[in-house]
Amino acid sequence: MSPSPKKKREEPKYELLYHPGIPGRGEFVRLVFEATGTPYIDVSNQETRGYAKAKKLTAEGKPPVFAPPALLIHGEGYDGKPLLISQTANILLYLGPKLGLVPEGDEVARYYINGLTLTALDLCNEAHDVHHPIDVAQYYEEQKKEALKRAQAFKRRISLFLEYFEGVLNSNEEGAGKYLVGKQLTYADTTLWQVLVGVEFAFPKTVGKVSKSCPLLFSKFKESIKEQKGLQEYLSSDRRLPFSMGIFRYYPELDAE
Amino acid sequence: MSPSPKKKREEPKYELLYHPGIPGRGEFVRLVFEATGTPYIDVSNQETRGYAKAKKLTAEGKPPVFAPPALLIHGEGYDGKPLLISQTANILLYLGPKLGLVPEGDEVARYYINGLTLTALDLCNEAHDVHHPIDVAQYYEEQKKEALKRAQAFKRRISLFLEYFEGVLNSNEEGAGKYLVGKQLTYADTTLWQVLVGVEFAFPKTVGKVSKSCPLLFSKFKESIKEQKGLQEYLSSDRRLPFSMGIFRYYPELDAE
Repeated sequence: MSPSPKKKREEPKYELLYHPGIPGRGEFVRLVFEATGTPYIDVSNQETRGYAKAKKLTAEGKPPVFAPPALLIHGEGYDGKPLLISQTANILLYLGPKLGLVPEGDEVARYYINGLTLTALDLCNEAHDVHHPIDVAQYYEEQKKEALKRAQAFKRRISLFLEYFEGVLNSNEEGAGKYLVGKQLTYADTTLWQVLVGVEFAFPKTVGKVSKSCPLLFSKFKESIKEQKGLQEYLSSDRRLPFSMGIFRYYPELDAE
Repeated sequence: MSPSPKKKREEPKYELLYHPGIPGRGEFVRLVFEATGTPYIDVSNQETRGYAKAKKLTAEGKPPVFAPPALLIHGEGYDGKPLLISQTANILLYLGPKLGLVPEGDEVARYYINGLTLTALDLCNEAHDVHHPIDVAQYYEEQKKEALKRAQAFKRRISLFLEYFEGVLNSNEEGAGKYLVGKQLTYADTTLWQVLVGVEFAFPKTVGKVSKSCPLLFSKFKESIKEQKGLQEYLSSDRRLPFSMGIFRYYPELDAE
């Protein structure tokens, strides 16, 4: 099973370590690889016994990894060892300049992009917490009563966040409604897009209403991301995992009026 | 009221924009300034009508700011204009290298530090959500029943997080239990420290128990941060705001067994 030295050199530099079978937070990382045509291995989904390997690698980190996703980057750690980094926003921060998903040589833009990404991920976290308001270690059904209450509050949060991002698109003239920062695709765009379609999947009625006050977000922005060459191919492939029982879940009762 | 040109040049480069009267997420930013003796203005706490000014400045950001804290940095934006950045982890990422709170020229360490900081801030968010499990726009008293349930789950989360950080300290030999990364103070240390004393304030009984399995965290680490020259002065000054009704709140019923 061990590859020959020659084969080893041809293997992708990047290995994504995440749970198998769900898009989850791993999807934010997959999107930047796919958008840029960068080779990577999605270990848990592509390798035999991949999830066991992913869990082993994250447990052995120095410093250890608190929770996946983590990214293993061959040759970039100390003394040419692999570098293992975790936290979604941190992985994207690392990959952004390396994959050309931040404007080159523009430090100001990098902090804007990181800030917007963190804000989009906050919405992602809140979308998760709606179906788990009490205990992440218990089933939704065990905290459904509380989830119904939290969903009412979350609907207001959806418009607060989406109208905020509509304002960001509005404030970036050169992005023409397609990009959050500057006039090119950044990882803030791919991240917000994933959160947007995730929240829309989970709360279709609510998002349908909010979309009326967010014309840029739901026309130019949402469509332009899908038109990126690498993403177009990816989104119609079977590598793109459907939403199911991960962060974004569709429970009609939570979206009801 | 407008300062003379000469006076203006002497004014601090950094202005922290945050709510007045509470440590909150602004405290993570204050700590890195105080630890390094860096001049800054805490606008809402130090200036007349400062909170109105802070709210005005954050609203005018381009891109806008979703939520405080934000940091205004004079002269570092495009064309020498002020740079306005938001999201706690993003502000710390910006300040880290500029204030000497990351090892110089060590890219690997920077991603470790950012990842650990994001993880400490996750614990901070969860500590907040315990007293607001349903709706951030309502009072604790209106969601107390749910908070009592969530607190039971959060107690397990406290040990999960703190034992993780104990492991990080253990894995960093050169830090000798005092530092998370390398052998010097980083902003991951100041951030974790603030979360640690915050969670201890809010859940003294629970943390008292967990501390037994985290000897490095509660002896060397916790004390060494307080021994940093700048922080020692700050923590005994009246600029250090006490915990009250912000993120970390002491409700004995939530800490009860």
